[in-house]
Amino acid sequence: MSKEKKRNVIVGQSGGPTAAINSSLAGVYRTARERGYNKVYGMIHGIQGLVEDRYIDLSNHIKNGLDEELLKRTPSAYLGSCRFKLPDIHQDQPLYERIFKKLDELEIDCFIYIGGNDSMDTIKKLSDYAIISGSAIRFVGCPKTIDNDLALTDHTPGYGSAAKYIGTSVKEIIRDSWSLETEKGQVIVVEIMGRDAGWLTGAAALAKSEDCDGPDLIYLPEVDFDMDEFMKRCKNLLSKKSSVVVAISEGIHTADGKYVTELDEGGVDYVDAFGHKQLTGTARFLCNRLSAELGCKSRAIELSTLQRAASHCASRVDILEAYEVGGAAMKAADEGDSGKMVVITRTSDDPYQAGTEVKDVHKIANDVRLVPRNWITKDGTYVTSEFITYVRPLIQGDVSPIMVDGIPRHLWVPGFQDLL
Amino acid sequence: MSKEKKRNVIVGQSGGPTAAINSSLAGVYRTARERGYNKVYGMIHGIQGLVEDRYIDLSNHIKNGLDEELLKRTPSAYLGSCRFKLPDIHQDQPLYERIFKKLDELEIDCFIYIGGNDSMDTIKKLSDYAIISGSAIRFVGCPKTIDNDLALTDHTPGYGSAAKYIGTSVKEIIRDSWSLETEKGQVIVVEIMGRDAGWLTGAAALAKSEDCDGPDLIYLPEVDFDMDEFMKRCKNLLSKKSSVVVAISEGIHTADGKYVTELDEGGVDYVDAFGHKQLTGTARFLCNRLSAELGCKSRAIELSTLQRAASHCASRVDILEAYEVGGAAMKAADEGDSGKMVVITRTSDDPYQAGTEVKDVHKIANDVRLVPRNWITKDGTYVTSEFITYVRPLIQGDVSPIMVDGIPRHLWVPGFQDLL
Repeated sequence: MSKEKKRNVIVGQSGGPTAAINSSLAGVYRTARERGYNKVYGMIHGIQGLVEDRYIDLSNHIKNGLDEELLKRTPSAYLGSCRFKLPDIHQDQPLYERIFKKLDELEIDCFIYIGGNDSMDTIKKLSDYAIISGSAIRFVGCPKTIDNDLALTDHTPGYGSAAKYIGTSVKEIIRDSWSLETEKGQVIVVEIMGRDAGWLTGAAALAKSEDCDGPDLIYLPEVDFDMDEFMKRCKNLLSKKSSVVVAISEGIHTADGKYVTELDEGGVDYVDAFGHKQLTGTARFLCNRLSAELGCKSRAIELSTLQRAASHCASRVDILEAYEVGGAAMKAADEGDSGKMVVITRTSDDPYQAGTEVKDVHKIANDVRLVPRNWITKDGTYVTSEFITYVRPLIQGDVSPIMVDGIPRHLWVPGFQDLL
Repeated sequence: MSKEKKRNVIVGQSGGPTAAINSSLAGVYRTARERGYNKVYGMIHGIQGLVEDRYIDLSNHIKNGLDEELLKRTPSAYLGSCRFKLPDIHQDQPLYERIFKKLDELEIDCFIYIGGNDSMDTIKKLSDYAIISGSAIRFVGCPKTIDNDLALTDHTPGYGSAAKYIGTSVKEIIRDSWSLETEKGQVIVVEIMGRDAGWLTGAAALAKSEDCDGPDLIYLPEVDFDMDEFMKRCKNLLSKKSSVVVAISEGIHTADGKYVTELDEGGVDYVDAFGHKQLTGTARFLCNRLSAELGCKSRAIELSTLQRAASHCASRVDILEAYEVGGAAMKAADEGDSGKMVVITRTSDDPYQAGTEVKDVHKIANDVRLVPRNWITKDGTYVTSEFITYVRPLIQGDVSPIMVDGIPRHLWVPGFQDLL
C-alpha cells in the first residue's frame, strides 16, 4: 500500500480500565503517525460513542513527547470505555450499516480496538461485516485486561501492573497485620478482582519473599470453594499464629456453582450488559462468618478499583509491552490484517523474552483462559512455583510517575472531561 | 553526664502503625549509638510486651547502613505495637513497681516511646512515677500517628505519607471513574480513617490539580453530617456529571452525636481497649442509601489499612522528619529531659522549613487537635486553601523502595516474626 493512499485511523478503548491501556493508545498513535496516516481519531466511550458520533482528533491531545509519556502513566481509559455488546449482524444489520457509513465518512482505513474478551467480540463482528459488505477497512484488536484471561496470548497488558500492585499491597497488609496483637487472633481477608480466572488473586503470592511469608491461603475461582474446609483451615492457622491473611478472588464459588455472596441473603444482585453478575462483599461475607464461628477479629479489605488504576505502582515491563502491542496492532492493520488480535508470545522466562504475533480473533473472542489446574496446589489453597515463574517477569521494573506537587501527574487537556 | 556512665536505652512502639514509625525507630537507634549508649533494647508490642518480659537487642536487627535504610522503608511497627492503657498509678502501683524493676534490671537510662495520644499517656504516667519513686530513668515520647491529631505539634510523622497515598489513590479512583458511563450515574464514596479528626480525609483534596477536579465532596468529622443535605448534594451533582466522587471520614456523625454507621441496624459494635468504637462500613452504608434513594450506581471504597501501610508511596519529607524526630527524642532523653514529647515546629510554608522542640507531655496526652473550623468550607463539604497550604509540603518527595524481584523489600531477620 503506497504512502499516498493512507487516510485515517480510529482507535477505541473498551471494557474495564487498567493502568496500561493508555500506553497501548500511545503506541497506536505513535505507530499510526510514523506509518504516515493522516488523522488518528479516538472514539469516546468505544463503539458506543462512535455510534453516537462522539470522537476526537487525538493530535489535539498528544501534542509532544511529554504528552505521550504522561499518557503512558495515566490510569483508566483515556478515551472513556464502554461495555457495549454489538448484536449479531443478522439481529441488527442497520446498526452495522450506520457504523460503516460513519467510518467511511471519517475516511477510516484502520480500526483498532483495545480491550478484553468482549471487545474482541466487537472486532470479530465488525471484521465479519467488512467481508460481507466488501469494505476495505481493517479491524485489529489490541489485548487489554487486568484479568489476564484472553485466549492464545501468553498474558495481557494491564495484568503485570495490577499484579505488581496486588503483590506490593498484600505484602504491606501482611506486615501491618503483625503490629497489633488480638486476644483470639485475627483473620484478614483480601478480596481481589477476577470473576472466572484467578490470575490476579494468584498474584497475591508475589508478597512471599525472604522478608515475608506471603498470604496464608489463596483461593482462586478455578477451584470449588468449601466453606467448612475454609473455616477449619482458618481455625487451625489461628491456633499457630495470631494473624492470618487470606487472599480470595471475588469470583470464588461453591461446588454447586453458587458465588459465596449468593449464600448471603442480604446480598444485592446486579447484572451488567453482558449478563455478568456483579460481585462485591465476598470478603466481608467470609469475615462475618469467621468472627461469628471462630470468635476471632476479622477485617475485609477490597482492593476495589485501586488495583486496576494504580499507575503509581505500574510495572515497567507491562507499560512498555502495552505500548509495543499498541504499535503492533497498528502495524498489522496497516499491513492489511483484519479480524486479528495481537498476542504476546513468551520465548523465555529467565531471562524474560517475549514478542508479538497476530492471531485470528475468531479463536479468541468469548473464550476464557483460566489458571491451569496444575499451577494451583492440590488442596486448592495456593499457587505453585510455576505460577510465580510465570508472573514474576511481568512485574519487573518501575515507571517513575511524573510528580507535580507531590502527586502523580496524568494527561489532561482543558475541557476534556466534558467530552466523557 | 559523662560518657562512661551511659548504660542502656529501651524503645517501644504503640498505637496504630504507620509508614513512618520505623523511620523514627531507626532515628532513635542511630542517635543512641552515636551518643555512646551500650545496648538499645526494643520492647516487643510496646509496654505490654515489656511487662511480659518480651524485648530484643536491636543490634541483632540493625546491623549496618542498609538495614537502617530498609527499616526506614518498612511499614507497620517493626517491634509490634499495642493498645495497652496503663492504669493510674494509685490503681495499680505494683504494676509500676514491676515495670521499673524490669527497667532497672536492664540498666535502662532512657525510655523512648513512639506513638500517638494514648502512648503519650504512657510516657506521662511513667515519668510521673519516676518522680514519685525517685528513679533517674528519663521518659520521652516521639510523636507518631497518621491521624495527625496530637496537640502542640505542627504535624505528626506518619501523616505526610498517609496523605500522599490518599491524594494519589483518590486521584486514581477519580480518573478510573471517568472510564465507564452508567445510565443513572454513579457515586463513589471513599472511606478514609480518622475518628475525630479529619486531617486524613482532607488530604483527599490533594487529588485536585490542573489535571483533576478532585473529589466533589469531602466530609470531615469536625462538621456534623446531615444525611438529607448529603443526598440533595449528590442528586444535584448527578444532574450535572455522570460520576461523583465523595471522600468521607469513617468518623462522620450526625448533629446528635451518632456515627453514621450507628444508623445502620445491622451494624456491629466493637469497642477497643481505650473505649473507642471501631468504625467500618460508613461508605457502604451511604452507598446503599444512595442507590436506594437516587437509583444511581454506587461503589464504596475503604482505604483500610492500605493507607497507613503504603510505604511504597511514602513521602520523603515525612520519612526524614520521622527519622529526625526519633533522633531528637533520644537526644532529649540523653540530655536529661523526661515527661516530654518532641514536637515539630514549622517556621515557613514556602519554602517549607521546620525544626523540633521538646514540650511537656502533660499538655499533650489525651488531647485531640482537630482541623480548624475555618480550614473547612462554610457549608462543611470541602477543605479550604489554608488546609492545602498546610498539608502540601508534607507530601513532597519520594523514598524509592528498594525493589527485589519487583516488590519492595522490608527489614526482616530470620525467625523475627515468631517473636511477635
